Amino acid sequence: TSTGVRASPPPVVRYDMNSVTVTKDPEQNKEKILILTPMARFYQGYWDNLLQLNYPHELITLGFILPKNKEGNAATAALQAEVAKTQKGPIDSRFKEVIILRQDFEPPLTSQDESERHKLNNQKERRAAMSKARNSLIFTTLGPMTSWVLWLDADIVETPPTLIQDLASHDQPVIVPNCFQRYTNSETNQDEERPYDFNSWQDSQSARDLAAKMGPDDILLEGYAEMPTYRALMAYMVEENKGMHHEVPLDGVGGTALMVKADVHRDGAMFPPFSFYHLMETEGFCKMARRLTWTCTGLPNYKVYHYNE
Amino acid sequence: TSTGVRASPPPVVRYDMNSVTVTKDPEQNKEKILILTPMARFYQGYWDNLLQLNYPHELITLGFILPKNKEGNAATAALQAEVAKTQKGPIDSRFKEVIILRQDFEPPLTSQDESERHKLNNQKERRAAMSKARNSLIFTTLGPMTSWVLWLDADIVETPPTLIQDLASHDQPVIVPNCFQRYTNSETNQDEERPYDFNSWQDSQSARDLAAKMGPDDILLEGYAEMPTYRALMAYMVEENKGMHHEVPLDGVGGTALMVKADVHRDGAMFPPFSFYHLMETEGFCKMARRLTWTCTGLPNYKVYHYNE
Ligand SMILES: Nc1nc2c(ncn2[C@@H]2O[C@H](COP(=O)(O)OP(=O)(O)O)[C@@H](O)[C@H]2O)c(=O)[nH]1
Ligand SMILES: Nc1nc2c(ncn2[C@@H]2O[C@H](COP(=O)(O)OP(=O)(O)O)[C@@H](O)[C@H]2O)c(=O)[nH]1
Ligand SMILES: [Mn+2]
Ligand SMILES: [Mn+2]
Repeated sequence: TSTGVRASPPPVVRYDMNSVTVTKDPEQNKEKILILTPMARFYQGYWDNLLQLNYPHELITLGFILPKNKEGNAATAALQAEVAKTQKGPIDSRFKEVIILRQDFEPPLTSQDESERHKLNNQKERRAAMSKARNSLIFTTLGPMTSWVLWLDADIVETPPTLIQDLASHDQPVIVPNCFQRYTNSETNQDEERPYDFNSWQDSQSARDLAAKMGPDDILLEGYAEMPTYRALMAYMVEENKGMHHEVPLDGVGGTALMVKADVHRDGAMFPPFSFYHLMETEGFCKMARRLTWTCTGLPNYKVYHYNE
Repeated sequence: TSTGVRASPPPVVRYDMNSVTVTKDPEQNKEKILILTPMARFYQGYWDNLLQLNYPHELITLGFILPKNKEGNAATAALQAEVAKTQKGPIDSRFKEVIILRQDFEPPLTSQDESERHKLNNQKERRAAMSKARNSLIFTTLGPMTSWVLWLDADIVETPPTLIQDLASHDQPVIVPNCFQRYTNSETNQDEERPYDFNSWQDSQSARDLAAKMGPDDILLEGYAEMPTYRALMAYMVEENKGMHHEVPLDGVGGTALMVKADVHRDGAMFPPFSFYHLMETEGFCKMARRLTWTCTGLPNYKVYHYNE
């Protein structure tokens, strides 16, 4: 019972994953980058910073996932307006493709305030939800031609324009810059900066001892006085005399800005929404990448900046 | 420096994952199915069986991954020839899309003979390679509109034509039929059948005791006399008086034929290429799905058949 009106299906597509290169000079090799952003709120500073990235936009696909709540609806509207403006603007600014997903589960917390987000008791549920959002995004958007994935949080408002080239130049499977925050010192009234993301670290014996005493579903968290890990935090490893490209090995990574070779995800590295070696989300991702025999690298002197609420 | 000749980028795509249904009547709801097959060898019986599946082909995307070796090259050529024939044939037989990936890592064993594949010492390396092949396939092909994923091995040569509808009708997140093999009994010269896949099981205290004594990287394997697990195997749970649709809960699943709601993968469920609770590949996948709070179900009386080498 074939009908003449139905369009014939598209031809077969065949991809030779060997022909997709992943090199320290991706621009030269026209490598395709997927920038992935879970977004609870829209910040203009994020979009403006994204636009000034000078890796060829025609090689960049953007993927977003936004929660299904009032705040997520507002963020989606704001994002779509900016996307429409950009994709109708100068050809060189337009991105190859923009994919916007609405997540089909409820985020666990109604409040997105920083103090509420960071409460210890809320962290496990919150990081499980964040992990699932990140997993939905990567499973749904990663294609056969993608060489690199850049995870970039929606509240990263300042990076060098050469962020992609700089991170790729290290040719590391997983690499993370140092996430800081600008603020005005209320005593001196000076513009200063302080570390923001404490999820990039090197493991410690204290953390391993804490983990050994935990139940299988318990998780270690960084930055809580109740649970001193004495891990070596990349946040405190800035040594500017060593230059922007100074590398350190890491056992946990943050996800505010995080560059990953697509093959690391293709091997199976995802963001554990459950306790994985007592770690979750981006920290668990690092552990998982390591179980897949990849390594994680930090750039303590290479800074990106988080919005200050 | 914009140029007039460059085509403008495609419009933004926005997907509301809430609008993609996953129901017990997928055909009625025009739900999209992704059939995924890791393929080391091409069997005509697999293709012929695939063609007789009567779920609307226009709702089915096929995804394959084949190794980069001599045997994989031959299988790719044979597969492509059949795909070309089908996609040029009657409209109703054509699939929505066919994606063929070539894996960019070497399979660990040169021999694909059944006896060699099943040797205990070879299993860990082999199942890690299989896991990575499956992960590459799911990460690369799963799209935002997919409702269900049917994993179907390349040597499954006989299933009911209603396989997809039948499995979906249970509305279970992960569901697996019983994989048997036809053979000729050499004593009686009768055509008979025997269980083939022993990866679908219910856990036992013996298996848990064995696991508790193992090193963190060790794995439990089913069907090896050296390692008696006394798990309850679905292979031996056939009770035909209970009908085709009799369900049993499972703690491990095989992947010869395996139906998964796409959201289970989107939450992060992949095939662990490393020891995960002393499990790997499809058995580890079941454990991971369970850690993500999904359940796994077996249909002991619903049979599919594996090629007999
Ligand atoms: N899709 C989605 N994104 C979220 C959700 N909660 C936070 N985000 C985004 O995920 C990223 C990290 O969350 P954020 O609250 O900034 O974490 P923090 O800075 O580490 O406290 C940011 O880009 C948020 O906009 C959520 O429930 N769903
Ligand atoms: N891509 C890929 N597929 C493989 C490889 N080895 C086996 N396969 C396929 O994976 C599935 C399971 O492998 P098989 O050898 O049949 O496993 P068994 O029947 O459990 O012994 C089958 O569809 C094979 O064709 C490999 O190295 N790469
Ligand atoms: Mn943030
Ligand atoms: Mn087989």
